[in-house]
Amino acid sequence: MIAKKMIKYVQGNSVTRAMFEEGKRMARLYGAENVYDFSLGNPSVEPPAAVKENMVQILQEVPPNQIHGYMNNAGHEEVREAVAKSLNDKFGTDFTEQNILMTVGAAGGLNVILKAILDPGDEVVAFAPYFGEYNNYVANFDGVMTAVSPNIPDFQPNLAEFEEKLTKKTKAVIINTPNNPTGVVYSKETIQKLAAILEQKQKEFGTAIYLIADEPYRELAYDGVEVPYLTKYYDNTIVGYSYSKSLSLPGERIGYLVIPNEADDYGNLWNAAVIANRILGFVNAPSLQQLAVARCLEEATDISIYDTNRKLLYHKLTGLGFECAKPEGAFYMWVKTKEPDDKAFAARAKEFNLLLVPGSSFMCPGYVRIAYCVEKEMLLRSFAAFEKLAAYYKE
Amino acid sequence: MIAKKMIKYVQGNSVTRAMFEEGKRMARLYGAENVYDFSLGNPSVEPPAAVKENMVQILQEVPPNQIHGYMNNAGHEEVREAVAKSLNDKFGTDFTEQNILMTVGAAGGLNVILKAILDPGDEVVAFAPYFGEYNNYVANFDGVMTAVSPNIPDFQPNLAEFEEKLTKKTKAVIINTPNNPTGVVYSKETIQKLAAILEQKQKEFGTAIYLIADEPYRELAYDGVEVPYLTKYYDNTIVGYSYSKSLSLPGERIGYLVIPNEADDYGNLWNAAVIANRILGFVNAPSLQQLAVARCLEEATDISIYDTNRKLLYHKLTGLGFECAKPEGAFYMWVKTKEPDDKAFAARAKEFNLLLVPGSSFMCPGYVRIAYCVEKEMLLRSFAAFEKLAAYYKE
Repeated sequence: MIAKKMIKYVQGNSVTRAMFEEGKRMARLYGAENVYDFSLGNPSVEPPAAVKENMVQILQEVPPNQIHGYMNNAGHEEVREAVAKSLNDKFGTDFTEQNILMTVGAAGGLNVILKAILDPGDEVVAFAPYFGEYNNYVANFDGVMTAVSPNIPDFQPNLAEFEEKLTKKTKAVIINTPNNPTGVVYSKETIQKLAAILEQKQKEFGTAIYLIADEPYRELAYDGVEVPYLTKYYDNTIVGYSYSKSLSLPGERIGYLVIPNEADDYGNLWNAAVIANRILGFVNAPSLQQLAVARCLEEATDISIYDTNRKLLYHKLTGLGFECAKPEGAFYMWVKTKEPDDKAFAARAKEFNLLLVPGSSFMCPGYVRIAYCVEKEMLLRSFAAFEKLAAYYKE
Repeated sequence: MIAKKMIKYVQGNSVTRAMFEEGKRMARLYGAENVYDFSLGNPSVEPPAAVKENMVQILQEVPPNQIHGYMNNAGHEEVREAVAKSLNDKFGTDFTEQNILMTVGAAGGLNVILKAILDPGDEVVAFAPYFGEYNNYVANFDGVMTAVSPNIPDFQPNLAEFEEKLTKKTKAVIINTPNNPTGVVYSKETIQKLAAILEQKQKEFGTAIYLIADEPYRELAYDGVEVPYLTKYYDNTIVGYSYSKSLSLPGERIGYLVIPNEADDYGNLWNAAVIANRILGFVNAPSLQQLAVARCLEEATDISIYDTNRKLLYHKLTGLGFECAKPEGAFYMWVKTKEPDDKAFAARAKEFNLLLVPGSSFMCPGYVRIAYCVEKEMLLRSFAAFEKLAAYYKE
């Protein structure tokens, strides 16, 4: 008696999430120290100390009904002002609190903006490989997802195919850089070209095409690589941000949308998004978390820990003969599988207690994603298992 | 360029929410002490002291990644176990953690269960007057809302009309007791009759009809009135609960769904709901709040404060000649307007700085809702304004 639309989900479910559960089951079975769970982007690095200190301070000092009460559906005004100011300081933008909508994580934010703009049949374009949940978010509003093929081996967006796949019905493009699952950061030149294509297509079709920048990994960039701030390159950019990774708060569901004044139909778009936040059932972003992140805007988790893992893993895997995309950001390694069927490869890896997510979950078979946001000791212990996996495919 | 479905929302928006903003504007204009804002159900009573104590203790004692990390999309297992046990102790039920899905408030929970069960065109029945957001939640999934006419003057459900309005396409009935906006508590006899009608109609149509009990006001009942626990009366009951009112945490967005084993198609229903929680973008209920409420299950805000307001206001309004529904629960007074047009009446009240929500927002014109979850001093100051309002209509 469940909804027909839900049947395929119940039968399929999320491979990543199923692995998360499977990892916990295997840990009980074989001992946690013998299971190498690289399945979920659940940060291993602790939040900065300031997060706890500020949460406790807020609880001790601010009147409880002010902490926990209702506020504007867009979020606390002073929090939104602080976020706007912080962005302006960092990126030279010119946002006010009327451009910042606090959301239940980036997942909440993406659903809010898609609800605000999508009519049934509207098309949303994304570059494979991409986070599989985008398919579900777009389907929530009866949108149609269009995937641009992966650009192997550098995994920068395939702009020639992108241009061909834009149509009069394209309402939005979702871009995610630093990228989940590849760890690739899209270069400034790529962004400029992509923006030029969008500008030209908007003119050609007489439509507005929103570029939705999903940015939970913005601060997770290594080797000093620049991550361009997209509102500066294209007026119709909406940014979806999350503190899940930058402050290691994924379970708290706290993030925001940036809806710039320059975006097409700004007034209606802002109002529609605030209303969508309410009627989708979020109502508002969790209030204590709003107040806490506003006091931690210049804080960041210690990404040197991820960086160490990144280097260790990249060195190990390439040494074993695995092909990896150049990992410049996020905390994912994107590895070519030793047999074409990535699900078979992941199943084989699981025999060595390695939990890796098949690339087909990201619309890109032939690869696996390794989330290296794990304890370094676990990573080092896992190397013997990777050796066995490599040896298996050498025989 | 916003979605067509959103245009009517942007033009209409929520009257209650607009009033919340208007109240803040008027407070700046006339001074907060001269504005009597009865528009929003934003608790005035503080959370119990244990809420703060436990939040601080959790932050001080539990490892941060355990507090703030991802968990099962249904919520922390130990939290769900604790909630199940607490319900079993209170109501003699037999729930386990597999029946408790932690949600982003009751609004999140209602959207999750509706996503799980509604196909486009499926009908959902509610008893007027009801919380206007139900219309939006049902529309999110292309369901069709059917309102049963108000039963004046006692505002118990109109069961004769209810029976007539159930069809083969009825997938769910939403019931809310203690009721927003009337403050009425549905009696045990009413529930038994309603359950019998549903049982009979399920047989007649060969369908499953889920009874969704929206219960944010469960603990706000006065004069020792009993609030029946609905899963005990009808197998296909889903409970949506929120800590917004019982612990005064509305901004934190924390609640749960109860999906009992006895519910039709339990296994698929549970899985669909957990997946819906994920793909709608909630992902999971805010994690610190989950841990906090699990430690405060036997706590409750001091409802004697609301009770005092209730008695003062009821006495005052009836003394002024206003007709009020018998207020047995929640923190709302439901008052017949002195002219048939409730919006005109509310506009008139606003001239005396009284912010009341027109009944038409609750599918029941000719009434206004007064949210008395306010400071007692403000309530007492407002009486002069109510006197002027009454005097205006006497002239």
